[in-house]
Amino acid sequence: MKIHNYSAGPSILPQEVFKKSAEAILDFNNSGLSILEISHRSKDFVAVMDEARALAIELLGLEGKGYQALFLAGGASLEFIMAPYNLMKVGGKAAYLDSGTWASAAIKEAQFFGETVIVASSKESNYNHIPKGYTVPSDADYFHCTSNNTIFGTQMKEFPSLDIPVVCDMSSDIFSRVLDFSKFDIIYAGAQKNMGPAGTTLVVIKEEILGKNGRAIPSMLDYTKHIKAESMYNTPPVFPVYAALLTLKWIKDKGGVAAVEKLNIAKATLLYSEIDRNPLFKGASVVEDRSTMNATFLLNDEEHAPIFDALWKEAGISGLPGHRSVGGYRASMYNAMNIESVQVLVDVMKALEGKI
Amino acid sequence: MKIHNYSAGPSILPQEVFKKSAEAILDFNNSGLSILEISHRSKDFVAVMDEARALAIELLGLEGKGYQALFLAGGASLEFIMAPYNLMKVGGKAAYLDSGTWASAAIKEAQFFGETVIVASSKESNYNHIPKGYTVPSDADYFHCTSNNTIFGTQMKEFPSLDIPVVCDMSSDIFSRVLDFSKFDIIYAGAQKNMGPAGTTLVVIKEEILGKNGRAIPSMLDYTKHIKAESMYNTPPVFPVYAALLTLKWIKDKGGVAAVEKLNIAKATLLYSEIDRNPLFKGASVVEDRSTMNATFLLNDEEHAPIFDALWKEAGISGLPGHRSVGGYRASMYNAMNIESVQVLVDVMKALEGKI
Repeated sequence: MKIHNYSAGPSILPQEVFKKSAEAILDFNNSGLSILEISHRSKDFVAVMDEARALAIELLGLEGKGYQALFLAGGASLEFIMAPYNLMKVGGKAAYLDSGTWASAAIKEAQFFGETVIVASSKESNYNHIPKGYTVPSDADYFHCTSNNTIFGTQMKEFPSLDIPVVCDMSSDIFSRVLDFSKFDIIYAGAQKNMGPAGTTLVVIKEEILGKNGRAIPSMLDYTKHIKAESMYNTPPVFPVYAALLTLKWIKDKGGVAAVEKLNIAKATLLYSEIDRNPLFKGASVVEDRSTMNATFLLNDEEHAPIFDALWKEAGISGLPGHRSVGGYRASMYNAMNIESVQVLVDVMKALEGKI
Repeated sequence: MKIHNYSAGPSILPQEVFKKSAEAILDFNNSGLSILEISHRSKDFVAVMDEARALAIELLGLEGKGYQALFLAGGASLEFIMAPYNLMKVGGKAAYLDSGTWASAAIKEAQFFGETVIVASSKESNYNHIPKGYTVPSDADYFHCTSNNTIFGTQMKEFPSLDIPVVCDMSSDIFSRVLDFSKFDIIYAGAQKNMGPAGTTLVVIKEEILGKNGRAIPSMLDYTKHIKAESMYNTPPVFPVYAALLTLKWIKDKGGVAAVEKLNIAKATLLYSEIDRNPLFKGASVVEDRSTMNATFLLNDEEHAPIFDALWKEAGISGLPGHRSVGGYRASMYNAMNIESVQVLVDVMKALEGKI
């Protein structure tokens, strides 16, 4: 039976990525060697890293604009530390938008490095919306925001235009929609949603903002050192980077981010329409801030849960339970999910009406 | 043609690891899902992480001795930072043995955190031996050493018994030989030599030494937080951890570290005997400190290089050139290499005698 994988992350990837990466484990580029046993300094892997870095920049429309892409290890959580280490002055301060659990975790780490101004927070309403109408202090060293809140199913539709560097955690919606990415100075994203398997983090940096905060930075946390070493300051996570490259190529083959965005909107529209139409369900986040990636929704009557749960499991759906801090359900519809899988979920939601 | 992979790292792994990990990419545990798309919080992956952590402790003979094993991301180079962050007091100092390039890199990072005492160094002789007869200051917060120097082909045979915590970078010889591992308080090792593909780092920690240096530690760099979260403080590098588990199971199936060590000694003896017998070659490091993992050797007459290089390439050998800082050749004979492959190299060295 086909499984419809709604996991929030690590999450669904294109079947082609599985097929090609399994092949590379048995024999990489007809070398007679596995991709798991080749040197990261080999010609074949240097080509993988170079292509992945260039393709990330290309897909974001940032060619020739002074940006560098890195594929680091460590997870996006390490960027919570690297961003302030590289940008916050000693005795400086940074401005953060608190739009969810991960934004809040980023704030906690920044506090190790200096003053942290929370410009706005939606915590009081359990992060069911994106805060708006805030002012960012113009003397902050940078502004940090989270473009998509995986847990709560909200997504920033607008980003402030500022004279200070803008840092954005795009872990759960990178490469899912077209934005003017040149508004950002650092974009980072753990691979394990739209970009590849867990184990590597993309960091896209406007190079000119680095080296200005006067802080002594340990090498592994220093973006400048990683850029100088062309993302091979130390042994990179070879296989995750290779699988990320395969995923980026798949996006390009689909027609790039704009084409993928169209499909993402169609999937989200299909599901949210059913959530709004079906009297048994309600959305968990405010309508205007709904995420196209993660749709959070609840049963109006919790007593229907056992029947609904049995129905979606029978239909081959997995990964649908919501995060414990929201409850209910969360349908993560990353790039690699087909609209047919969303239709299966919608059909199950409709079927529930006939069962009760 | 069979390739004999002498790469220094990432490096040869058991064929069984390639086969099983490729299968898991196509279908993990008959779930109908790839290991690249499952949640790290899924029952199946939690079991992988738990088994890998327990098996690492078991293979090192550290069960019931107060140790915890973590599989982190970021590479061993990140441990160069985490060790001082977690152990060095504010205004404190640490003692380091400078036995090679990576030891020296670890020292450089520790200097961001406090005073660093280099107890001895073999830098003046291009790290061709392990420094001995040094004294470690008893008031240092910890002592750091590197058990095997991949680049130079030297290996510590003895370790000091100290009253302060001992931290050891075992990246290139972990699980290759039996030691009294309880002499160490932190052992860390990038996976990409004897333990798995690049992308995860094993850290084995005697828990009681943590939380004593009074330093505020950012979460992702805090061993205590990683231990509390059972090595899932953030999304771990799922696939590299799974492939590491397969490799650890292979070691256990071979009879454990003691059995593997026997084979490693046999391989090293075979190759070093030929280096010493063959008048065309000489070893690059002093005999008593020779590494069983990485044998470095040189041609006595550089003019023979083109003939020798052609011979080993014809024989299907790859990854033999030495690191630029030593020159010549380096044969890395990690656990997964069969003695038959070492015999192929020895035969080529013998054949060279007949060619000139």
